Amino acid sequence: MKLRDLGEFPFLRRLRERLPADPRVLLGVGDDCAAVALPGTTVLTTDAMIEGVHFRREWTTLTMLGAKAFAINASDILAMGGEPTFALLSLGVPQDTEVEDLDAFFEGFLRAASDCGTALIGGNMSAAPCLMISVTLLGQLLHGVIARAGAKVGDDVYVTGTLGDAALGLRMLQEGRTDPSAEYVKERFLCPTVRFAVSRALAAWHLAHAMIDVSDGLLQDLGHLCEAGHVGAVIDAPALPLSPAYQTMLGKNHWDTALTGGEDYELLFTAAQAQREPIGQLSQTSHCPITRLGHIVSRPEGLTVRGSDGAPLTLARSGFDHFRQGRK
Amino acid sequence: MKLRDLGEFPFLRRLRERLPADPRVLLGVGDDCAAVALPGTTVLTTDAMIEGVHFRREWTTLTMLGAKAFAINASDILAMGGEPTFALLSLGVPQDTEVEDLDAFFEGFLRAASDCGTALIGGNMSAAPCLMISVTLLGQLLHGVIARAGAKVGDDVYVTGTLGDAALGLRMLQEGRTDPSAEYVKERFLCPTVRFAVSRALAAWHLAHAMIDVSDGLLQDLGHLCEAGHVGAVIDAPALPLSPAYQTMLGKNHWDTALTGGEDYELLFTAAQAQREPIGQLSQTSHCPITRLGHIVSRPEGLTVRGSDGAPLTLARSGFDHFRQGRK
Repeated sequence: MKLRDLGEFPFLRRLRERLPADPRVLLGVGDDCAAVALPGTTVLTTDAMIEGVHFRREWTTLTMLGAKAFAINASDILAMGGEPTFALLSLGVPQDTEVEDLDAFFEGFLRAASDCGTALIGGNMSAAPCLMISVTLLGQLLHGVIARAGAKVGDDVYVTGTLGDAALGLRMLQEGRTDPSAEYVKERFLCPTVRFAVSRALAAWHLAHAMIDVSDGLLQDLGHLCEAGHVGAVIDAPALPLSPAYQTMLGKNHWDTALTGGEDYELLFTAAQAQREPIGQLSQTSHCPITRLGHIVSRPEGLTVRGSDGAPLTLARSGFDHFRQGRK
Repeated sequence: MKLRDLGEFPFLRRLRERLPADPRVLLGVGDDCAAVALPGTTVLTTDAMIEGVHFRREWTTLTMLGAKAFAINASDILAMGGEPTFALLSLGVPQDTEVEDLDAFFEGFLRAASDCGTALIGGNMSAAPCLMISVTLLGQLLHGVIARAGAKVGDDVYVTGTLGDAALGLRMLQEGRTDPSAEYVKERFLCPTVRFAVSRALAAWHLAHAMIDVSDGLLQDLGHLCEAGHVGAVIDAPALPLSPAYQTMLGKNHWDTALTGGEDYELLFTAAQAQREPIGQLSQTSHCPITRLGHIVSRPEGLTVRGSDGAPLTLARSGFDHFRQGRK
């Protein structure tokens, strides 16, 4: 059935009935506003996905798309050391959209949200020329904030997971590649992992001095972290964590994509050298690779990437700007 | 200068420098998340405006568009008896957008926000095929919530301002009309009034039992209020507040547009009969018309509109559904 045949209000009524009861929500979907109590410090973020810019319908199921819309926002909350709590969803939907597709989108979004203890408390749906998803996510800070600023000279620089897979996956989707390595990196682009356990432990044990998520490429996001903290950094390219699929496709000495590719949604953080042992243990207990990439230096030293021989590499570009470079 | 020539990050840096310091904001625009303390009960809403669906660029200045993007969200907060506090803004922007136009948009948005004591604390900007604005607005409840539910049988039904002007204004914009009456209603569509003082007083003095803003048309929104409160309502069409421009254009006995036209963003509320005097005083002190339209009846009596002779009117349609009817 098309959405225009069912209508907006009947759709929203059905959706409301699907939402689980949540004692934290004083008023949920269905009034002019949601109402909640938000003790302590609240962190908030908003991020959007637009058809033709961030995704194409033929690349992904709507369930995966819903999960990704949640994940890219959760990543920002986790990068502050926060725990996601409440979500609002603003949807622009073409009039001929199938109700089943929208149901699938909400299934993916709500399942991903529920996995992180998050309730959908409000939203908005309107007609649009293409599918547009804008999410606002709230989180609570149980153990203080981990901001971008805060890196100290001498800190180690760490990143979770592997880098460059999402950018490579996007390229494989654009080129229509289907071999096993391509399938792996495509999934990394379409279904980013939410690093919930690592963020929670870093926050609870006060391990990280500064943190950001890698959404626009390692170098660009590390640049933001250095700028905010008035520091520089040295990264050893051979230390970059590359997936087997990445190495199969590009070779283990191709670092450009890992350094500049966007949308990995991994956590990039700095920590004192004294924390190497607990961070190693955290990597094991959370079953998440956490790789030491380099260290923080003073601001005048800038941001340097060293190759196998320890000499600085010269890089063509540093990351992604939505407007400077044509998007995909 | 085009946005693609300036770039996203330089634009955001300029914007950040324009934002006034706000002691309530622990971390504002520029980190992965904003961080704020939100004591008491927080109300939240999200609403979007999409080029070609909700507006056309040739109809409006970008400054007016920014102010309206704030106003339509503020209206939802005010309809709960809340005071707007913090905003997040998710923008989809065509790559060839002029930086000056974006500056104008932010000028309108920030001025409207500041007039209501609201700080912009976060946002997101991405490339898009058309201009898309999604706002999330937070508010605080100082005096308890005024929900949609809560109307009591025997309550009076009130509305602020005048009805139907925005729908008429939209029609005038579509038809390219420029006479003085047309100009008045066009402005009512493009620049809805934020009923801040009335909402604040209704909340502080606990005058309203139930409230909603009129965004989809009086009958539809009154229907939502009745549904939520398990009540019915009787409305007297001759009591509908019609602007002089409306009466000039449609005549004083044309009620359809006032009953079903959307986007007026006036406040519709119910109150006990004993409150007629304070509500009359509030109308005077706030310089805002507040009109008694009818009263609440029991649920089985449903929703009735009576004409000049007191007999029920038969209506062709009850309001606006974004998907059922082609939008504009």
